[in-house]
Amino acid sequence: MDVMSRPQRLSGFPEWLPAEKIVESAIIASLQHTFALHAFTEIETRAVEPLDQLLRKGETSKEVYVLRRLQESVEEAAAEAQDQRQLGLHFDLTVPFARYVLENAGKLVFPFRRFQIQKVWRGERPQEGRFREFIQADIDVVAQDMLPAHYEVELPLVMAEALNNLTQFGVPKAQILVNNRRLSEGFYRSLGISDVDGVLRNIDKLDKIGASAVRELLESELALTAESAQACLDLAAINATEAADLQDQVLALCERVGASHELLDQGLAELTQLLDAASARLPEAIKADLKIARGLDYYTGAVYETVLVGHEDLGSVCSGGRYDTLASDGKTTYPGVGLSIGVSRLVSRLIAKSLAVASRSVPTAVLVAVNDEADRATSNDIAATLRANGTPVEVAPTAAKFGKQIRYAERRGIPYVWFPPTAERTRPDGSIAPAQDHQIKDIRSGEQRDADPSRWTPPIEDLWPSISAGV
Amino acid sequence: MDVMSRPQRLSGFPEWLPAEKIVESAIIASLQHTFALHAFTEIETRAVEPLDQLLRKGETSKEVYVLRRLQESVEEAAAEAQDQRQLGLHFDLTVPFARYVLENAGKLVFPFRRFQIQKVWRGERPQEGRFREFIQADIDVVAQDMLPAHYEVELPLVMAEALNNLTQFGVPKAQILVNNRRLSEGFYRSLGISDVDGVLRNIDKLDKIGASAVRELLESELALTAESAQACLDLAAINATEAADLQDQVLALCERVGASHELLDQGLAELTQLLDAASARLPEAIKADLKIARGLDYYTGAVYETVLVGHEDLGSVCSGGRYDTLASDGKTTYPGVGLSIGVSRLVSRLIAKSLAVASRSVPTAVLVAVNDEADRATSNDIAATLRANGTPVEVAPTAAKFGKQIRYAERRGIPYVWFPPTAERTRPDGSIAPAQDHQIKDIRSGEQRDADPSRWTPPIEDLWPSISAGV
Repeated sequence: MDVMSRPQRLSGFPEWLPAEKIVESAIIASLQHTFALHAFTEIETRAVEPLDQLLRKGETSKEVYVLRRLQESVEEAAAEAQDQRQLGLHFDLTVPFARYVLENAGKLVFPFRRFQIQKVWRGERPQEGRFREFIQADIDVVAQDMLPAHYEVELPLVMAEALNNLTQFGVPKAQILVNNRRLSEGFYRSLGISDVDGVLRNIDKLDKIGASAVRELLESELALTAESAQACLDLAAINATEAADLQDQVLALCERVGASHELLDQGLAELTQLLDAASARLPEAIKADLKIARGLDYYTGAVYETVLVGHEDLGSVCSGGRYDTLASDGKTTYPGVGLSIGVSRLVSRLIAKSLAVASRSVPTAVLVAVNDEADRATSNDIAATLRANGTPVEVAPTAAKFGKQIRYAERRGIPYVWFPPTAERTRPDGSIAPAQDHQIKDIRSGEQRDADPSRWTPPIEDLWPSISAGV
Repeated sequence: MDVMSRPQRLSGFPEWLPAEKIVESAIIASLQHTFALHAFTEIETRAVEPLDQLLRKGETSKEVYVLRRLQESVEEAAAEAQDQRQLGLHFDLTVPFARYVLENAGKLVFPFRRFQIQKVWRGERPQEGRFREFIQADIDVVAQDMLPAHYEVELPLVMAEALNNLTQFGVPKAQILVNNRRLSEGFYRSLGISDVDGVLRNIDKLDKIGASAVRELLESELALTAESAQACLDLAAINATEAADLQDQVLALCERVGASHELLDQGLAELTQLLDAASARLPEAIKADLKIARGLDYYTGAVYETVLVGHEDLGSVCSGGRYDTLASDGKTTYPGVGLSIGVSRLVSRLIAKSLAVASRSVPTAVLVAVNDEADRATSNDIAATLRANGTPVEVAPTAAKFGKQIRYAERRGIPYVWFPPTAERTRPDGSIAPAQDHQIKDIRSGEQRDADPSRWTPPIEDLWPSISAGV
């Protein structure tokens, strides 16, 4: 390869240095473990989908990266475009999951619990400074025809546990905010409002434009009365972590404005169940927040967003909800419920604010020194013995002076240096240096002692890099 | 989402069913572990590189997928094309690694040992039936200015160990075939041949077109004498797993044709070292095979290819070599040595031939039955208790008859069903069913017994899905 000028970062395509990657890998491994403990099985889908599939949700079409083969002929490109064989990179993991479910329906067993941790791509304009490539971690349960409501309670609890397990790596405490479309819809309908999606779309803007601007939109755009608009805002203002508190607030409002509807009762009962289950399992991890609307119109029950306490400016790091039709082939409908963590968003905050720091930039626990280049085989044998006992080991790159070999370990954060045995030898001044046995040095404390490579292992906390919560 | 017709597979984009994904994940986890034990640190690069970087090796240009944003304006597209900001998907992990090293040189410590396991894409014509998206697993050591030759010995041994560790999952035995460019070059030069790359390029065709066709090319294209051409073929015919055997054969040939060159000696010494080290560590795992030439002209020392014994038709599953210039910024040169496993090629063979089979399609070890939908909380509590002890658990989706709940477990390969306690109750016939304690049933043996959820864990071999070598 010939000379390259120093490459430039590509904005929107995050990459990590080795010690940062250790943080990201620890977070992904923790998520995988929590999801698997909760009986979600992992799948991975290809990075591309046919363009017509990706464009089913019209609103995201502007964000798609389309592929073409560099050497594609004009005729080939035209043929592909015509019969819609053009491929694009997926922009989320829900569209590919829906396609995977339909494609493999005969080979899967339902309800199907899957997790999926992959990169997704969005063709944002470069100048916006948003991620164009990032990792999402999704869990979903999808059923055939009928999905019991208890999954709407279970899934946010799984995510709350998954996020709670990340606090050991410095991830700030998360709170999952929950609403239920049925509650909102029942409330609106009993006020005589028919454009339910319209109200939700405006309520979704509360955090951005504030209550009075939303009130104005509800009155001008949707022609709500001042009283109805105020009632919608009052509903959106309710939040609670205790089920009884939520019920008190909702029922008081309903009595005041005269709202009553079967859907409202159902939605409230489901939210109440979730808060009850959460307070038994993870108190405060889940909060009913009736302003959560989620822009997307395919949610039909619970909807979820998640804030990191003290990092609300980051926006939601984990969102989702229930959809009655994840996919359908005409005969069978697949309802589902799921949530998706924005892993890259989380990790980039940890790194930017030094919230999580890896104890070293390499997996290595031990550097085996080399006495003499001619004797490298001895060091290789020691390394093999240590590895056979599960210790990550590197052999020094050159038989430099020991001080230099120790500095090599220091620069990487490798905690131990192993010195191979030496035979009795005559020093330059004629005196005799005695034979010396294997020795291991903890370069942090400077402590050095005899050790047997077939029996020695590092203390468990030094075996692999650890992550500590930073500042 | 509206109705979709049954989606079609996209040829060249492999995807796995859940039980197959368990096999792939086990293989990747095993590779990660071996690489980390050998002190390689993981990095991940973005999926895209600027097109001008990807096209530095002219020969692969036809395989690149270029991206465009779907809603990109004509002006934007033109501007991007003009200042070479067009992006393409990487087709290997070497080009992005070289770029990563240059971009972060000031923040890395050298020699830098990294592994990288990621998808790559090649814009092959669909009809060729080749992978267009696949996973590679690469290890490389890259240094600043000078890379000691012992890394050319170490890296294939790491890969041999990594591949050997995969045999527990049904991966066939691997043999890494090694040659050394210095040996070939020295041999050719001492015969008076100046077009070394030309000879290597033709020797590389031996397996495809046979010895007599290669001889013809060497004589007609490169104007070699019949004797020289024959000598080149004789060198390429040498292979050996024992260092002494290799030396005997090479020295006998050199004496016969009168070849002698410093580079030849150096290359032979390096190959000999590798075979000696291999026979001490992993006998037969590495074979010197002097016909291995590797098409790419940037290799400068050892070159490697790997066959799976009994699956030679698959081609090389792990290739690489030493390159004196992985990257250069004009001031500093970065020599390296590395190998790359074609993970998808390996996994697709395992799956196609049922060489590896997962014990179940879900992580779940225990299904907790539900006595009554009103009592789901009891089952959830049991599941939480079992998970707290590290057991992957799912709660039954409905309070169906126990027979149906057991069949739910059976269909997924879940080995255990947990029955929550029941109170004393009156049967329909008026008799009394006694209270019953927690019970765990192994649904394979049918054995059922009392158990305490806070103390019970499954036998270690049932805790997670295992992979057994298949037929």
